[in-house]
Amino acid sequence: MFRKEIKVMDCTVRDGGLMNNWQFDDDFVRSVYQACVAGGVDYMEIGYRSSESAYSRDEVGPWKFCDNKDLERIVGANDTELKLSAMADIGRIALEDIPQASNSLIDMMRVACYTHQVDKGIALAEHCLEKGYEVTLNIMAVSTVMERDLDEALEDIAKTNIPIVYLVDSFGSMYCEQIQSLMKKYTAKMPGKTIGYHGHNNMQLAFANTIETIIQGANFLDGSILGVGRGAGNCPTELLLSFLKNPKYKMRPILDVIQNKLVPLQQEIDWGYHMPYMLVGSMNEHPRSAMKWMNSEQKDDTVAFYDSLMEDRATLE
Amino acid sequence: MFRKEIKVMDCTVRDGGLMNNWQFDDDFVRSVYQACVAGGVDYMEIGYRSSESAYSRDEVGPWKFCDNKDLERIVGANDTELKLSAMADIGRIALEDIPQASNSLIDMMRVACYTHQVDKGIALAEHCLEKGYEVTLNIMAVSTVMERDLDEALEDIAKTNIPIVYLVDSFGSMYCEQIQSLMKKYTAKMPGKTIGYHGHNNMQLAFANTIETIIQGANFLDGSILGVGRGAGNCPTELLLSFLKNPKYKMRPILDVIQNKLVPLQQEIDWGYHMPYMLVGSMNEHPRSAMKWMNSEQKDDTVAFYDSLMEDRATLE
Repeated sequence: MFRKEIKVMDCTVRDGGLMNNWQFDDDFVRSVYQACVAGGVDYMEIGYRSSESAYSRDEVGPWKFCDNKDLERIVGANDTELKLSAMADIGRIALEDIPQASNSLIDMMRVACYTHQVDKGIALAEHCLEKGYEVTLNIMAVSTVMERDLDEALEDIAKTNIPIVYLVDSFGSMYCEQIQSLMKKYTAKMPGKTIGYHGHNNMQLAFANTIETIIQGANFLDGSILGVGRGAGNCPTELLLSFLKNPKYKMRPILDVIQNKLVPLQQEIDWGYHMPYMLVGSMNEHPRSAMKWMNSEQKDDTVAFYDSLMEDRATLE
Repeated sequence: MFRKEIKVMDCTVRDGGLMNNWQFDDDFVRSVYQACVAGGVDYMEIGYRSSESAYSRDEVGPWKFCDNKDLERIVGANDTELKLSAMADIGRIALEDIPQASNSLIDMMRVACYTHQVDKGIALAEHCLEKGYEVTLNIMAVSTVMERDLDEALEDIAKTNIPIVYLVDSFGSMYCEQIQSLMKKYTAKMPGKTIGYHGHNNMQLAFANTIETIIQGANFLDGSILGVGRGAGNCPTELLLSFLKNPKYKMRPILDVIQNKLVPLQQEIDWGYHMPYMLVGSMNEHPRSAMKWMNSEQKDDTVAFYDSLMEDRATLE
């Protein structure tokens, strides 16, 4: 698939950090940055932009804040083709803590919100636009909201000048037919907007679903190297680059960082295809119960986790 | 997706055995068998049917032959709903070594052949039909044959009374649009035949592509538990069962054997998503070079493997 409008966004540090509280050493983050530059990746999401008051630096690493002083250590003045992105969660960043884009190494702000928060999401996104950033609005967890509420949210976004809106499969629970159906909705409800896609890999569908969104017209595609990310992880950036035909993308630098940084990381952090993540994905549930299980002593007792999920369901009515 | 005609074929022992020369102990094979029975799986492919003269029992385990005496140790008289299947490769089985179905615990014979061997494949499949077996014909490696040759093979098969024909993504190299296109061809060229699908997971697409074949009408679906199989492995049976809505399929027995047998096996045998397998898949190449690399001391040097592939390509003209 060659379409020159397509942009690849690597979320290795931002989404991978959800597994280790962004406690990456500088060498790791620099290696990912250099691989993205050499690999022709369009954007690197290097972390979250949060207010210092929202988290303690004793608990989370610098990529939960994305201060310029931390960024400079890694990217210097970022005199490259690679653009840098940071994600902002509603309620975790005060407007006055967002610098003007001209004073920041961050090129793009991505605002993540739930459907019920879309007013707040739009307000924060518009604020970032006014400060000179490229901006996306990412609507999370749409597999669990009622269609009417999603329609209303999309109609509200359609009226704004936010240029890029993300379809997000937060629970890794969607099959290709659901992706296809939502992509048709997003493009119909928000004419003229660029659509992006961020998937999770609970059912080994993140890459396949990303291809489906490309077929349906999505032009912003999220991946992470070796698929690192929360729980089961994300669409592997290396698969995405191997699929896209644009000659600007290079595989070798990505393989190099996989071999030297991501494979060693996988010995420490257990993302990927594990049964607890698969089960919550297939049941359209938040991964928190699976992540808790994977961090417990019962980690390997998949059947007990399954039984606990079924017990929860049996008592729901 | 509920369609009562759909049958699930678990290839754990047959395809997984390609990674360890079928050196499974009886307890492992019996556990997989019991999980398939309890999980409501329709068919279990327990191995290959080969002539004793084709291989040495010093090198390969009993599941390369599927003799009744070995089968009986595992399944007794197989007084269950689960049917047993064995695969036959062209040239590895003499016709006189295939017993009458009424004298065998094997219910189904699956004949695997390349497009250029389709005459031999049809002859062997028809022989198995005459001996009373259920029969499929599995055309391998169709991602590397010229369309005209594939068309002719399918037209030849259409004239036979072989009831089930498999689309096989031998190299794990196909994307959903290629699967869709081939499924349309198979159904158009062979009206009235049941179509099956066997994928490999080099690009994390085996499950997604299986769903695509279901959408296109395939009713025989191959999987293996935890995806065990040659190289990157297969479509995980547990994902397939979680997708299918037929209440006869049960997840718990499959999770039990994953936890107790497959996860431990994965410590010994390195199937799954590894860069060498991903690379040969994305380049539409036979996995043998990747499997050799993964068994060498250079195993972890992905970049060197990539360079060797690119060198081969550079000198091809």
